[in-house]
Amino acid sequence: MVYKKGFSTYIMGDCPSVLSYASVASKKESQGPLAKYFDILCEDTTFGEQTWEKAESRMQKDAANKALEKAKLSQKDIDLVLAGDLLNQCTGSTFGLRDFGIPYLGIYGACSTMAESIAVSSLLLEGGVIKKALAVTSSHFCSAERQYRFPLEYGGVRPPSSQWTVTGAGAVILAANNQVSPFVKAVTIGTIEDLGVKDANNMGAAMAPAAAKTLCNFFHDTMTSPSAYDMIITGDLGVIGSKLLNELMEREGYSIINNHADCGVLIYDIEKQDVHSGGSGCGCCASVLSSYILPAIRKGKLKNVLFVATGALLSTTSIQQGEAIPGIAHLVYFSGNDNKELI
Amino acid sequence: MVYKKGFSTYIMGDCPSVLSYASVASKKESQGPLAKYFDILCEDTTFGEQTWEKAESRMQKDAANKALEKAKLSQKDIDLVLAGDLLNQCTGSTFGLRDFGIPYLGIYGACSTMAESIAVSSLLLEGGVIKKALAVTSSHFCSAERQYRFPLEYGGVRPPSSQWTVTGAGAVILAANNQVSPFVKAVTIGTIEDLGVKDANNMGAAMAPAAAKTLCNFFHDTMTSPSAYDMIITGDLGVIGSKLLNELMEREGYSIINNHADCGVLIYDIEKQDVHSGGSGCGCCASVLSSYILPAIRKGKLKNVLFVATGALLSTTSIQQGEAIPGIAHLVYFSGNDNKELI
Repeated sequence: MVYKKGFSTYIMGDCPSVLSYASVASKKESQGPLAKYFDILCEDTTFGEQTWEKAESRMQKDAANKALEKAKLSQKDIDLVLAGDLLNQCTGSTFGLRDFGIPYLGIYGACSTMAESIAVSSLLLEGGVIKKALAVTSSHFCSAERQYRFPLEYGGVRPPSSQWTVTGAGAVILAANNQVSPFVKAVTIGTIEDLGVKDANNMGAAMAPAAAKTLCNFFHDTMTSPSAYDMIITGDLGVIGSKLLNELMEREGYSIINNHADCGVLIYDIEKQDVHSGGSGCGCCASVLSSYILPAIRKGKLKNVLFVATGALLSTTSIQQGEAIPGIAHLVYFSGNDNKELI
Repeated sequence: MVYKKGFSTYIMGDCPSVLSYASVASKKESQGPLAKYFDILCEDTTFGEQTWEKAESRMQKDAANKALEKAKLSQKDIDLVLAGDLLNQCTGSTFGLRDFGIPYLGIYGACSTMAESIAVSSLLLEGGVIKKALAVTSSHFCSAERQYRFPLEYGGVRPPSSQWTVTGAGAVILAANNQVSPFVKAVTIGTIEDLGVKDANNMGAAMAPAAAKTLCNFFHDTMTSPSAYDMIITGDLGVIGSKLLNELMEREGYSIINNHADCGVLIYDIEKQDVHSGGSGCGCCASVLSSYILPAIRKGKLKNVLFVATGALLSTTSIQQGEAIPGIAHLVYFSGNDNKELI
């Protein structure tokens, strides 16, 4: 890797490899267009547990174990696990991965967690510090609703700009120089961006500026343009945030309209499933990435993909105190080849 | 760095250097034994802000800016900032560091955050990925009380095993091969440990097993013994947790009684300040490290110090649902020299 001061993009020398991936999803996701791609699909949203929070932990545990099983690895083979989620104090991850015995780095990136954990894993693999890392995250509609909005029993009306928290989890195992596609060719670490959006029912608008900033940084740092990539897939901007992102990118001179997709738009049938602007939550892009995107790269159906997961860095307290919603977006560039050229 | 599978300790080849450090504390800390060491001591616990949460963010901002000022660096000189705190969704860090424009990695390690952020920074510096990193964290008595326990106005009685959340922050700037003491010679990444302690008013007992596990891993991996170090300083086990740690270590064949200290015990006058078992919170070990420990190493008063910050990975929801309190501890080995021998 060549270090360049002031650049937030890190271009890999020996590309870390995505060894394995696994996804878990639930009832609503089983009715959506990606249903057939998930590894574990459990229509019982409790996953056999006593509370929604324990169900969320269970999803992380199941996703991580499935990824290990697919890679024919045991927990002892993993040097580091990087995980986080949206529950207060990230307890979805703590309790989900408590029994794994793997050295544990808790991270917090809201819905950008999957990209943050893969990006940090990649940097540590590229630096020769570790050989194998496990990145995990999750979200659960019911645990998110009662923590961020209203108890489910209240039956609150959702505005059209709101998004539906995905009940799902994703786990990705990364390895150094493993010669199996997909490869991580570059990562861009995001900065906190805040354009003053204060509507907690319009997260897409709050996060779009962060996605635009990170994408512009990536194109600048790599001297490439959007057309070089098969797909630029954002985390969970939804319909409204995606439209905004496209406008912001046009303003910066980058047209992504032809190859942009959004995990929050892909995971549900927006018209039929009553999800308003689309899916959201850490589990949204995590489950879409590990069920639909990474396998497509491995099979050669997609070649060069920019995965840009966005997070809204709010809390109920920050909203009550009148703060705006800062956003952040981390980018991981996955490719089907590890040749020395970037594309 | 030599990679060893199954080892959670990473021994640095070219030791990252602690370039600068700064601490912020408030009224209660100004009445304690470390008062004279803090860079910024503000007796007004609001720090001039409208809410306790905004005050906490302000402390992170002030600590980070002070560390930059002491190192004669600007925000643009830093490649990555790693930060987190105990507020729901880590908003202390988000809003404190929102305007810095530095690529941002949110982390969550509860009270182990300072060690986690320094450890990850060190691994990225050692891997040649970045050149300069900023690690920041904070806690505030008033924001923690109302989030975790009771509104201050309620005047709840605190049991003798409880700890007092430090109102303080710490910031540390690390650089690659900078040839200035203190140096980071090794780090050990902790695993989640859970011996079934369920008393949220006895965090020291919940965290002591994690500290013991990480210390034992470090001594095993480095083939050194406790007597090789001037000081083994834990994050915030307090009086009760410290006693337990000593017992657990004795059982494992390591006596640390002669060189163990605890930030939660050092920061207050335990007898006179009515803090029961001692200080706690992310800001406890962060402010003690960056005011008292790191300067002592730079001045040569301390030579080899093991900094073991512990975190209790609970939330109010996990406690209400009857879960035990898992703990985690990350270790950073600071030394006054960067010679090739470990000691």
